[in-house]
Amino acid sequence: MELRSTAPLVGSDDLSLAYTPGVARVCEAIAADPTMTQHYTWVPNTVAVVTDGTAVLGLGDIGPQAAMPVMEGKAVLFKQFGGVDAVPICLATTDADEIVETIVRLAPSFGGINLEDISAPRCFEIEDRLKERLDIPVFHDDQHGTAVVALAALQNALRLTGRDPEATRVVISGAGAAGVAVAKILIEAGITDLAVTDRTGVLHSGRGDLTPVKRELAEMTADKNGRSGSLADVLVDADVYIGVSGGNVPEEYVARMAPDAIIFGLANPTPEVHPEVAQRHARVVATGRSDFPNQINNVLAFPGIFRGAFDVHATAITEGMKLAAAQALADLVGDELTEEHVIPSPFDPRVGPAVASAVADAARRDGVARR
Amino acid sequence: MELRSTAPLVGSDDLSLAYTPGVARVCEAIAADPTMTQHYTWVPNTVAVVTDGTAVLGLGDIGPQAAMPVMEGKAVLFKQFGGVDAVPICLATTDADEIVETIVRLAPSFGGINLEDISAPRCFEIEDRLKERLDIPVFHDDQHGTAVVALAALQNALRLTGRDPEATRVVISGAGAAGVAVAKILIEAGITDLAVTDRTGVLHSGRGDLTPVKRELAEMTADKNGRSGSLADVLVDADVYIGVSGGNVPEEYVARMAPDAIIFGLANPTPEVHPEVAQRHARVVATGRSDFPNQINNVLAFPGIFRGAFDVHATAITEGMKLAAAQALADLVGDELTEEHVIPSPFDPRVGPAVASAVADAARRDGVARR
Repeated sequence: MELRSTAPLVGSDDLSLAYTPGVARVCEAIAADPTMTQHYTWVPNTVAVVTDGTAVLGLGDIGPQAAMPVMEGKAVLFKQFGGVDAVPICLATTDADEIVETIVRLAPSFGGINLEDISAPRCFEIEDRLKERLDIPVFHDDQHGTAVVALAALQNALRLTGRDPEATRVVISGAGAAGVAVAKILIEAGITDLAVTDRTGVLHSGRGDLTPVKRELAEMTADKNGRSGSLADVLVDADVYIGVSGGNVPEEYVARMAPDAIIFGLANPTPEVHPEVAQRHARVVATGRSDFPNQINNVLAFPGIFRGAFDVHATAITEGMKLAAAQALADLVGDELTEEHVIPSPFDPRVGPAVASAVADAARRDGVARR
Repeated sequence: MELRSTAPLVGSDDLSLAYTPGVARVCEAIAADPTMTQHYTWVPNTVAVVTDGTAVLGLGDIGPQAAMPVMEGKAVLFKQFGGVDAVPICLATTDADEIVETIVRLAPSFGGINLEDISAPRCFEIEDRLKERLDIPVFHDDQHGTAVVALAALQNALRLTGRDPEATRVVISGAGAAGVAVAKILIEAGITDLAVTDRTGVLHSGRGDLTPVKRELAEMTADKNGRSGSLADVLVDADVYIGVSGGNVPEEYVARMAPDAIIFGLANPTPEVHPEVAQRHARVVATGRSDFPNQINNVLAFPGIFRGAFDVHATAITEGMKLAAAQALADLVGDELTEEHVIPSPFDPRVGPAVASAVADAARRDGVARR
């Protein structure tokens, strides 16, 4: 990865312009009118990819230095698929207050903040507090990127299997960053019969061991449909299983799902249900892996979401913008919808522009666009 | 300016490698051995250019957003002249404690910290505290970059005018970041007869109004040679005048300097003594401007200094490394030494490599090289 000039610098005239004294006039223009930052600097096209290294891939809390390769990979994908300049920032603190303060202090340097691989439940608090304090997009990709792509794939899987969202029974295993965000976006998209499980079983308010985040989730899901018990219990006759928990779901559990079931095992590199096993009991199978059909890959979402937000100088990324991104992704599959193609390929060149355009339109509708 | 991949990313194999699952192996290698960061990430070649926007060029405290164009210009110069990737960071705080804490938290992301345009006296404290807390190079360019290049030019000017450092009377106006650093490096280089002035006059311990930094400077300079009074007083028979104060020094002051005087008016864009005026009373004249001979430009120093430090994975930038950088710059002029050529041009392609090589050697001598 490298950071380079997009303009040539070959002689002392260029030097006078790029640096002192020429640059002083640009500084003065911004000092007089801070919105000039949008025209004269790289800030409006630049996102900080920030982690504290506590929840890196499936590796867990490996620290900020060891997290850097993931942040660099993310930065490369931001550029390749969204034309967004992304700066990897690995923080030497895991304290939520310190993370928030540090990012607030960095904020004048960036057009947006992409939070990455920060463990739950701190990631929820950190994102909420940053959204309150900053007037630039703040987006925790492990939550919302996964949620957007999973929703897009599910919308197409429901279309393929002829289901109404309102009449579809969904089970999510995993109540971490991704589980919470997937559950919330499915509810926003019209799914009403939803249960989320953690290691103890279905989240419902009857349980005494719930964190505030899990209690909120219980109230939005199983409390409304009275479900309880274990993952095995709620998978009986379920239409959809979405795994964002890691671990292994035994074949006999998924064998009891409804006909034409939909199984998304999103843990990487080992899905909760191996695709060959899932295939025996489901009509649509998706994973996070590139070596099986229907890859639920965040790269389908985050580059286009930030591209769209930056294109209209959005002050935030709203729920409407995320839903619009999912719809745009789902729509790209169009008439080519099959069991093995419910979501576009990351290398489909239409993906980034389509997501960006839908997100920009939604930003305008939601009143967060500055142009 | 843009941040981009240096490796192609064209298909799903590249995606598997650059991102999940391939990247996990790189993360694990670093988690097992943090020094692998040096081999597997962009960190060892990347410097953060950090400002709080309080002392930007001659514009002063214009804030972090308006400072960004200068930091971007600096980043472009770092790349062009040193092959160093530089990330501009403009902080939304001017509190020294907060600046130090923020940079310490960012440090795992960078191979070095270049402080920029932070006002005195906070810049001294911030740099000292960061040097203590971090094991990567920390360098306040307004101080040390200016000092290195001024020393190089002065060494050649002394050679040209046949002076010994020990027998040379030097006056510096300005006791801010640059003045303090120039005075210190001249003393390290063997100048013994030195006086520094601020708006009130010569810094000496008899004055009751000195800050701790100015008191230390007084003890190292005028206290040793008994000088006092105004700038006009100490310029009488002085061999060298170095202006890093801004403002205007009247012609009658410099007219009283010794024969074959040396005048460096380094304020930008308006030197303390206009070069045409200085020319009437001095043999060697230098400024910070590109449109007159002998430009004292920091770009001669900072790219090569960080290049050399990074090449040997230095844990710090020592006094020895700064002196070596100055000597390398002075030596490049060699036999081409004239009144109008005491310092190389920034576009001399030998500059960056020569400075880098001298700095790397000095790092090894000083025991701060990790390879």
